[in-house]
Amino acid sequence: MPELRKDPILDRWIVISEERGKRPKDFKEFFYNPKEEECSFCRGKDLGLEEVYSLNDQMNNWLIKVVADKDPLFITNSQFSYSCQGPYKLASPLGRHEIIIETPQHISNMADLSEEQISLVFKAYRERMKNIILDERIKSVIIFKNQGWQAGGSNIAHSHSQLIAKTIIPKKMKEQLVGAQTYYQKNQRCVYCDMFKQELDDTSRLIVQEDDFLAFIPFAPSFPFDIWLMPKRHDCNFYQTSDQELTSLARTLKAVLSKINRAYNKPAYNYIIHTAPSLDKDNLGQIPNSFHWYIEISPRITKLAGFEWGTGFYICSISPEEIAKNLKNK
Amino acid sequence: MPELRKDPILDRWIVISEERGKRPKDFKEFFYNPKEEECSFCRGKDLGLEEVYSLNDQMNNWLIKVVADKDPLFITNSQFSYSCQGPYKLASPLGRHEIIIETPQHISNMADLSEEQISLVFKAYRERMKNIILDERIKSVIIFKNQGWQAGGSNIAHSHSQLIAKTIIPKKMKEQLVGAQTYYQKNQRCVYCDMFKQELDDTSRLIVQEDDFLAFIPFAPSFPFDIWLMPKRHDCNFYQTSDQELTSLARTLKAVLSKINRAYNKPAYNYIIHTAPSLDKDNLGQIPNSFHWYIEISPRITKLAGFEWGTGFYICSISPEEIAKNLKNK
Repeated sequence: MPELRKDPILDRWIVISEERGKRPKDFKEFFYNPKEEECSFCRGKDLGLEEVYSLNDQMNNWLIKVVADKDPLFITNSQFSYSCQGPYKLASPLGRHEIIIETPQHISNMADLSEEQISLVFKAYRERMKNIILDERIKSVIIFKNQGWQAGGSNIAHSHSQLIAKTIIPKKMKEQLVGAQTYYQKNQRCVYCDMFKQELDDTSRLIVQEDDFLAFIPFAPSFPFDIWLMPKRHDCNFYQTSDQELTSLARTLKAVLSKINRAYNKPAYNYIIHTAPSLDKDNLGQIPNSFHWYIEISPRITKLAGFEWGTGFYICSISPEEIAKNLKNK
Repeated sequence: MPELRKDPILDRWIVISEERGKRPKDFKEFFYNPKEEECSFCRGKDLGLEEVYSLNDQMNNWLIKVVADKDPLFITNSQFSYSCQGPYKLASPLGRHEIIIETPQHISNMADLSEEQISLVFKAYRERMKNIILDERIKSVIIFKNQGWQAGGSNIAHSHSQLIAKTIIPKKMKEQLVGAQTYYQKNQRCVYCDMFKQELDDTSRLIVQEDDFLAFIPFAPSFPFDIWLMPKRHDCNFYQTSDQELTSLARTLKAVLSKINRAYNKPAYNYIIHTAPSLDKDNLGQIPNSFHWYIEISPRITKLAGFEWGTGFYICSISPEEIAKNLKNK
């Protein structure tokens, strides 16, 4: 079973998961397995994994399927335990780990899915999130995608994303909540809404403008080439997004991924949905209300160097405005 | 000139440096230039860069040379300026950026330097740090190495490291200071000294044991395969290290780098010296005293995936104990 360990200096947990069974030699570069006949994510194959959700067509064939991960990092049925070793702390990995199979067809790049299909992916995210937060122990739900080896992806070619639910709010999420609340208390406004307005006025970092969403390069990105997709309507939680908004989001994401693919020759990338924990958990009170959910897309083009890694002080050798100018025209 | 920008949510600065002139196509993988005759870091070549320090042999030939960086991220003579754009903040990049050329010979891997030569490298680090902190405006000095493309290294084969001095204490350093102080206030002991004792007692994560230093895999590493080199003597600042301790440190580092090279087939890696800011700067009072300087070495074997990147919650698919067992015998 995986094991959670706490950094004794920084307020941060990590997870040790030897079940996933990687050795140093397993980390070398691989190429996607392109063979459709061997893909267990395609419709008609038996995955042998617990199915937790699906969206079907009128013929009752699945269009989107969510399954429990084969080697989960967080486990539903684990008993919560906690122990110490000298200055160190350990805990059991209570939570959930699921895989969202985004299409029944053997398509490897999400940009090649239709807008309708991407809408269904977001709908599956929303419904799983709504369901999982009913468990009182769960404090945060993270949905993300690892596309390609450089982005930590697996060698499964079939387009998919992951959901991890935990009893712990990650350090970065706490920092975002505190940062947003500090700004709100000072200005009586949401910092993300202010950013939305600033990007719309300035336009130099804007990439895509839709009815309900903006895609732009952040003013001070942590990863160079980072792109944010931000909803116009203030809401701290992704799972409260309407069907109409999901359609607009799907259109925005498809446009952005297509631009990235054209500009950078189908790079590896990650995306993650930054969304607040449930309001009434962990004594957070009204803090999450000043947060504003968004999606961060990180094309993995540059490398983190020692200075950035060691200090958290990031270096961009191309300005956000230059990157936006390039992407806007792709 | 580079530009500092502040993330409006997280308390973190980044630097935009277009002078370094990279475009997306420049980030593709390269191989080291192995040609000695073209290397401007070798003895006898004119770098055309301001030399700020050197250590010479009895024939007055340089053994170690420190020069100002060609395209510095932080600039000594820049006037400090500060401005706002809506919710965003900008500043000028006041500071220093230097290159430490670690050997007059065309050697690309630091593990191939002698212990004596590595001692001289550390001596150069110490002397530059001592000199730079005399400037009252400087609040932090970071020394680091990027070895290989996967670690953000340049295509210069000749072994070198970098120094960056800034008027800002990086976010991660602040967190380390606060974490160490919190532990100290609670336990009346240094958390790093407690870790040192725990690793010496436990031995399962130990790699190298020298008179004045331990090398071990941290209990809860942020990067899998991370190794810490920690001095036995409690001191928050690297620059107060004695000549004798530097000799012991050089022996420890050479042993660790040699083990890494044998175990992982000469991987790319970073190292960074985590050292406190000067005691009397930035109104930190006695906070830095509870810190304990150390070196973090990060072999770049795995990739950060979306979950880790987005949450700061790291996944290790090999336990620290397993990694230590492997390295100990190499």
